[in-house]
Amino acid sequence: MQQPLILITNDDGIRANGLRALVDAAKPAGRVLVVAPEAEHSGQSHAITTQTPLRLRKMQGYDSSSDVTVYVCNGTPVDCVKLGMTHLLSDKPDLVLSGVNHGSNSSISVIYSGTMAAAQEAALYGIPAMGLSLLDYSPTADFGAVQAVGGDLIKKALALGLSKGICLNVNIPALPASEIRGVKLCRQAGGTWNERYDRRLDPYGGEYFWLSGHFVNNEPSATDTDEWALANGYVAVVPIQPDMTGYAELERLKETWR
Amino acid sequence: MQQPLILITNDDGIRANGLRALVDAAKPAGRVLVVAPEAEHSGQSHAITTQTPLRLRKMQGYDSSSDVTVYVCNGTPVDCVKLGMTHLLSDKPDLVLSGVNHGSNSSISVIYSGTMAAAQEAALYGIPAMGLSLLDYSPTADFGAVQAVGGDLIKKALALGLSKGICLNVNIPALPASEIRGVKLCRQAGGTWNERYDRRLDPYGGEYFWLSGHFVNNEPSATDTDEWALANGYVAVVPIQPDMTGYAELERLKETWR
Repeated sequence: MQQPLILITNDDGIRANGLRALVDAAKPAGRVLVVAPEAEHSGQSHAITTQTPLRLRKMQGYDSSSDVTVYVCNGTPVDCVKLGMTHLLSDKPDLVLSGVNHGSNSSISVIYSGTMAAAQEAALYGIPAMGLSLLDYSPTADFGAVQAVGGDLIKKALALGLSKGICLNVNIPALPASEIRGVKLCRQAGGTWNERYDRRLDPYGGEYFWLSGHFVNNEPSATDTDEWALANGYVAVVPIQPDMTGYAELERLKETWR
Repeated sequence: MQQPLILITNDDGIRANGLRALVDAAKPAGRVLVVAPEAEHSGQSHAITTQTPLRLRKMQGYDSSSDVTVYVCNGTPVDCVKLGMTHLLSDKPDLVLSGVNHGSNSSISVIYSGTMAAAQEAALYGIPAMGLSLLDYSPTADFGAVQAVGGDLIKKALALGLSKGICLNVNIPALPASEIRGVKLCRQAGGTWNERYDRRLDPYGGEYFWLSGHFVNNEPSATDTDEWALANGYVAVVPIQPDMTGYAELERLKETWR
């Protein structure tokens, strides 16, 4: 039987340590095709490139294994998945992985995340997919826990599969592997980014802005959320689906909007 | 009593006819603040700008009414909402509108849409919000129906409000106003973009790609979806919420992922 085929992308770009950690975690499970952005694309969500030409370049020397093939792309994480699925591969991959992101994609951050959008895109093609994030924004974060946790999750996803359209949002606490208490299946916590803009003047007197902010968990006492799991030393796994309909609001509106 | 304050953005940029149509539809309902992207940002989803400085410029002469104030921004639709809400306004707006998009944002297109991401962003701030799209991609599309339909929807949203976190995805058929049969509250249809890449060579022999594809409605016989409403001459209104958890899959996984 042929080894499973695993497509990997990320949003921090080809040079990110998190991508390297994910490739290393995936290699024992099968053949790996990496299609990663040349540049960083954090916070790019489900953006696709339609106004400028997309370029794809085969990269040599990323990994010594002949089971790892690597391409870089000038587009977004979602472009990478689309190009990998429709142009580079003649067969569908068995699993698509995205990450490991440098920083959390739990709670409401999922809607801003390029990492998770890439996983969602693969799920829309009907492929089991996982986006993985480590709760450490540092470019030199310690991805040791990914080896311990990621390999097991990859094996489970390949063995058990996921329902069509579903991907997993996997967030990993910034802890040594030995201190991680296990994996919790949970729901997306209600949360808010409390944000402001840092206003500055450039050397020519022109005004510009940088976004800054901090996350607030709106459900601090709930114990079934990703935020609770992470705060308590667990890896948080949330199944994500693409139907954004607010069904309760739909029923409410049907009563009131005459 | 002071007139309601309405914040308007779009993803086709300040020069789009769809933005002009939305400003015209909103003006009778209150004071209008436009914060729109300088350039086109179609397919930018919930992307935010964190790697380059954001600029904001007040624009004169867009509208003769003293109740319309206009800024342009070098960022994405979501950047425009964030800057409008946190930097330009001291009070919260009563309503946020996004669009009118040139082209459909029904079904699964909602997750790629910059128009809808801007509306979602406002909903996360707790402001009632609507993204509007006309099913005509042409830059010179006829937005006549927006005047007829949009004004009424704006009045309803201001009068009735929306639950916290919810925005409306409003899609308008490409029909003369007289042929529109009414407004249907509905759910997001299950759909797929069947895509391929058009491969070309530049004059220097370099390979590049353009995305192309067509939409497929996966639920052609369902009559409660946005796709059904649009195909039958109705304006489709879908309430959109930000919790992406797949609750049914969460229960299934709890049984199988041991």
